[in-house]
Amino acid sequence: MGGRFRHYPRASGTLRRKHPSTRKNHQPMEQVDLVIRARWIVPVEPRGVTLEDHAVAVRDGRIVALAPTGDIEARFSAIRTVDRPHHILLPGLVNAHTHAAMTLFRGMADDIRLEDWLSQHIWPAEGRWASPDFVRDGTNLAIIEMLRGGTTCFQDMYFFPDVVARTAIERHIRAVAGMIVIDMPTAWAADPDEYFSKGIAVHDQYLGHPLVSTTFAPHAPYTISDATFERLRVLADELDTPIHIHLHETRDEIRTAAQNHGHRPLQRLAALGLATPLLTAVHMTQVTPEDIALLAECGASVVHCPESNLKLASGFCPVAELLAAGINVALGTDGAGSNNDLDMFGEMRMAALLGKGIAGNAAAVTAEEALAMATINGARAVGLGDEIGSLVPGKLADLVCVDINEPATQPVHHPISSLVYSACRDQVSDVWVGGHAVLEARRFIDGDTTGIFKRAAAWQRRLAETNA
Amino acid sequence: MGGRFRHYPRASGTLRRKHPSTRKNHQPMEQVDLVIRARWIVPVEPRGVTLEDHAVAVRDGRIVALAPTGDIEARFSAIRTVDRPHHILLPGLVNAHTHAAMTLFRGMADDIRLEDWLSQHIWPAEGRWASPDFVRDGTNLAIIEMLRGGTTCFQDMYFFPDVVARTAIERHIRAVAGMIVIDMPTAWAADPDEYFSKGIAVHDQYLGHPLVSTTFAPHAPYTISDATFERLRVLADELDTPIHIHLHETRDEIRTAAQNHGHRPLQRLAALGLATPLLTAVHMTQVTPEDIALLAECGASVVHCPESNLKLASGFCPVAELLAAGINVALGTDGAGSNNDLDMFGEMRMAALLGKGIAGNAAAVTAEEALAMATINGARAVGLGDEIGSLVPGKLADLVCVDINEPATQPVHHPISSLVYSACRDQVSDVWVGGHAVLEARRFIDGDTTGIFKRAAAWQRRLAETNA
Repeated sequence: MGGRFRHYPRASGTLRRKHPSTRKNHQPMEQVDLVIRARWIVPVEPRGVTLEDHAVAVRDGRIVALAPTGDIEARFSAIRTVDRPHHILLPGLVNAHTHAAMTLFRGMADDIRLEDWLSQHIWPAEGRWASPDFVRDGTNLAIIEMLRGGTTCFQDMYFFPDVVARTAIERHIRAVAGMIVIDMPTAWAADPDEYFSKGIAVHDQYLGHPLVSTTFAPHAPYTISDATFERLRVLADELDTPIHIHLHETRDEIRTAAQNHGHRPLQRLAALGLATPLLTAVHMTQVTPEDIALLAECGASVVHCPESNLKLASGFCPVAELLAAGINVALGTDGAGSNNDLDMFGEMRMAALLGKGIAGNAAAVTAEEALAMATINGARAVGLGDEIGSLVPGKLADLVCVDINEPATQPVHHPISSLVYSACRDQVSDVWVGGHAVLEARRFIDGDTTGIFKRAAAWQRRLAETNA
Repeated sequence: MGGRFRHYPRASGTLRRKHPSTRKNHQPMEQVDLVIRARWIVPVEPRGVTLEDHAVAVRDGRIVALAPTGDIEARFSAIRTVDRPHHILLPGLVNAHTHAAMTLFRGMADDIRLEDWLSQHIWPAEGRWASPDFVRDGTNLAIIEMLRGGTTCFQDMYFFPDVVARTAIERHIRAVAGMIVIDMPTAWAADPDEYFSKGIAVHDQYLGHPLVSTTFAPHAPYTISDATFERLRVLADELDTPIHIHLHETRDEIRTAAQNHGHRPLQRLAALGLATPLLTAVHMTQVTPEDIALLAECGASVVHCPESNLKLASGFCPVAELLAAGINVALGTDGAGSNNDLDMFGEMRMAALLGKGIAGNAAAVTAEEALAMATINGARAVGLGDEIGSLVPGKLADLVCVDINEPATQPVHHPISSLVYSACRDQVSDVWVGGHAVLEARRFIDGDTTGIFKRAAAWQRRLAETNA
C-alpha cells in the first residue's frame, strides 16, 4: 500500500502547497505527506468527542498527529494540505458483514418470504452464475459503492475470496476476505478439505498485506457439521484468526437446531469450544438472557445488520441490551440482495432508530454508540482494532470527510447527531485508505465507473433471462 | 404559479429546442411547454407499472399526455424538451405530516425520552423563540431540503401558517398549511376563538391559490377540549376541509384518555362526529382491531411517520394491517426535531422495511405500496387526490427525476425497487412543481442557499445560548 500518494490533482482550489514564507516559526519542521484541516473532527476515541479547529497529519499511510490546527502547522511541513471548511472528518466506516458480489442481485427479488427468496431466486442464481467473473464484477460494483459512501473496510463472506482480495487491492479498499466454509459443494470448493485448503492458501498469500487480511467465514450452524466446526476451532486458534458466522438469524434456525442438536446454535458453538473472543456472531435476532450472558462472558462480537433483518422479517436484535452487557456490537449491511444497498450511513441511522424502538426507550442506542458500532467496534470485530476505527496517532489513515453544507444537515447543533441522524451517503466528499486518496470532492480519483456499470447491466440481463 | 416557465437555462447539454426539420410528420402539432423523456417512468397509477421509452408532455402546469416517446414527438411541439437517459421520472413526493419550521431544532436534543425532549427542550425553545421570523427561516430551510429530495408538497402543522403559506409561494413548493388549533395560548393565538379566526383568515386568503391549500390542524386529543372539537367539526363540514391531528402516538396518550374521557382518543373523536373521510390520524402507533375497523369504516386516512416513531420510541404503527383493511396510509417525516431530516426517500424505505419487520412477513408493505404511500395516498390524505400524486393527464405537473446512474442503484432489475430500497435523496436531479422547474441537474434554479444557511446558523447559536 505504501501510504504514498500516487495522484496529486492540482485543479481543486482546496489544495495548496505550503511555502516557507507561510511558516509560523523557524524551528526545523517534520515532513509529512498530508495535513487535513476540517471544520469538525470526530475521532471516535475518546467516545463522544468533537474537535473544532483541529487537523490531522499523515505520513507513510498512518496518522502521525491529531491536534489544534495551529500546533499542526507549527510542527509539520506537509507535501499536501487539504482544507475542508464545512466538513466533518471521521474514521472510515467498517462494514463488518457483507457479501460484496451480491450487488449484482440488488433488487432482483424483493418483498418475498426468506425461504422463497433463497430457494427460488438466490440459490438457483448462485448455482448457475457464481464464478470468478461474477465475483469480480459484483465486488467491483460493491467497492465503488462502499468507497463512495465512506466505507473504507469491509468483511466479506462469499465464494472466491481470492478474487475478492485481488479486486479490493486493485481499487484500494481495505478488505477482510472471508475463508468461506460450507458443508456442500459449490463452484469454489467441493468439500470441507477443499474449502479449508483454498481458504488457507488465500490467508497465506495475503499474510502481512497492507490492505487485505482474512478471517474464517463458516456459513451458518445449519450448514456446518460438528466435525467441520472442530477443525475450524483448531485452525482458528493456530492462526489466531477471527471467525464470523451467521448466527441466530431466524426463529426457524433456532427451532431446527433444537431438533437436530438439542441446543441453541450459540450453545452448540460453545460446547465445541468456539465461544471465544475470536467469534463474531452475525445477526443475533433471536436472543435470550442466557445468550447475552454467554456472549458477554466469552468476549465474542456481534454484527448487527438491521436493514437486512427487517427486509427479510428475520426478527429484532436487542442492541441496547447487548451494549448494556458490554458486548462489542458492530454493524454490517449484509449483501445488497437483502438490503438493497451497502450504505453504512443508512445502517448507522437504522441501528440508532430501531434500537430505540425495540428497547422502547428513546435514550437507547445513542448517536455516539451507533457511530462507534460503525467504526471502532467493527474494527475490533474483524481483528483490526489496533489499526483502524478511530483517529489515534499510529493507526492507519483510513479517513472520510462528510460535507455538512447541505439543506438536510443544517444547522449543526451537534456534529455526531448530524452524521448519524441527518447526513446521507452522498455527502461523503473525500476518502483516504491508508493515507491514499481514492475519492476527492465526491469524485473517484482513479478512472470512472462506466465499465463497472456496463458489466453490472450485462449481468442483470443474464439474470433476468434465467429468472424469467 | 401559472405553469409557465420563468427560467430557461441554456447551459445544459440536455436541453434542446425542437426545430421544424426534426419533426417526424407534417400534421399540425399541438404546442406544449415541456416534454420530458426519461429512461423509465413510474406513474404510480396504475400501481406497480414502469414504462420504458415514454415521455410526458406538460402545458400550463398540467400533464397533457403520457405516452410512448414516438407518439409524444409526433403529436406535440415543445418549447423545451428535457432528456433524462438514465433516470426514473415519478410524481413529486407528498410529505403528509411535518412541522417545517422545526428544522431549526434539528439535532438540538437527541437520544432523550419523549417527555424530557418536549418539556425540557422543545416547548421552552418554542415558548421563547417561535415568531414569524423563526417560522420563515425554519420553513425556508425545510423547503429547500424537501425540494432537493424530491418532495413537492407538504402538509404542515405549526404556528404562523400565514408565514408558512407565504414562504412556500416564494420558493414555489406546494403547501397544505395547517390551521393549527390548541387549547392553550401561544405566540400565534391566545384562545380557540383566535386560533379559529386567524386560521380561517389564512384559509380564505389562499382559497383557489394554485400552490397553497389549507387543512385544520388540531394538535392532539389531550390538548383539545370537546367544545373545541365540536366547533371544529362544524367548520370542517362547512368548508369541506380535511382535519389532521396527532392521534394514538404513545401509550401514555391512550392511558390518559381512558382516565379523563373513558374512551380511547379515536373513539372520542368518533363520538364527537369527527370520524369521517375528512379525518387524517397522524402516527397511530397504538392500534387495536377495533381502531382498525373504525378507521376503515369511516374512510379516514392515517399518516405513518416511522422514523419519528422510532426515534421517540413511541411504538409501532401496524402498516400492513392498516393497508389490508383498505385504509389510506400516507407517509410523513414529522418535524426535523424528531427525525432528523425531511427525507421522503428515507421514510419510504423505512416504511417498507419496518412494515415487514413488524408484520413478521417479508412480503408485507411492498416497494409499490411504500411508493403509493409517499405519493397518491399522501395526495388523498391532504385533500389533493384529484390534483397530484400520480402521473395522469389532467393532473398538475409535480414531477421528479431520480438519477439512477450511481453505484448504489446499479444494476436495475426493477426500477420501483431501485427507488424505494436503494436510491437516496441526493440522487434527485430535477424537480418541477406545477410544471415550473425548481431543481435542475441537482442545482436550484432560483438563487442559492447561502442566506438560508446563515440564518439557520444564527438560530442555532441563539438556541444553544438559551439551552446552555
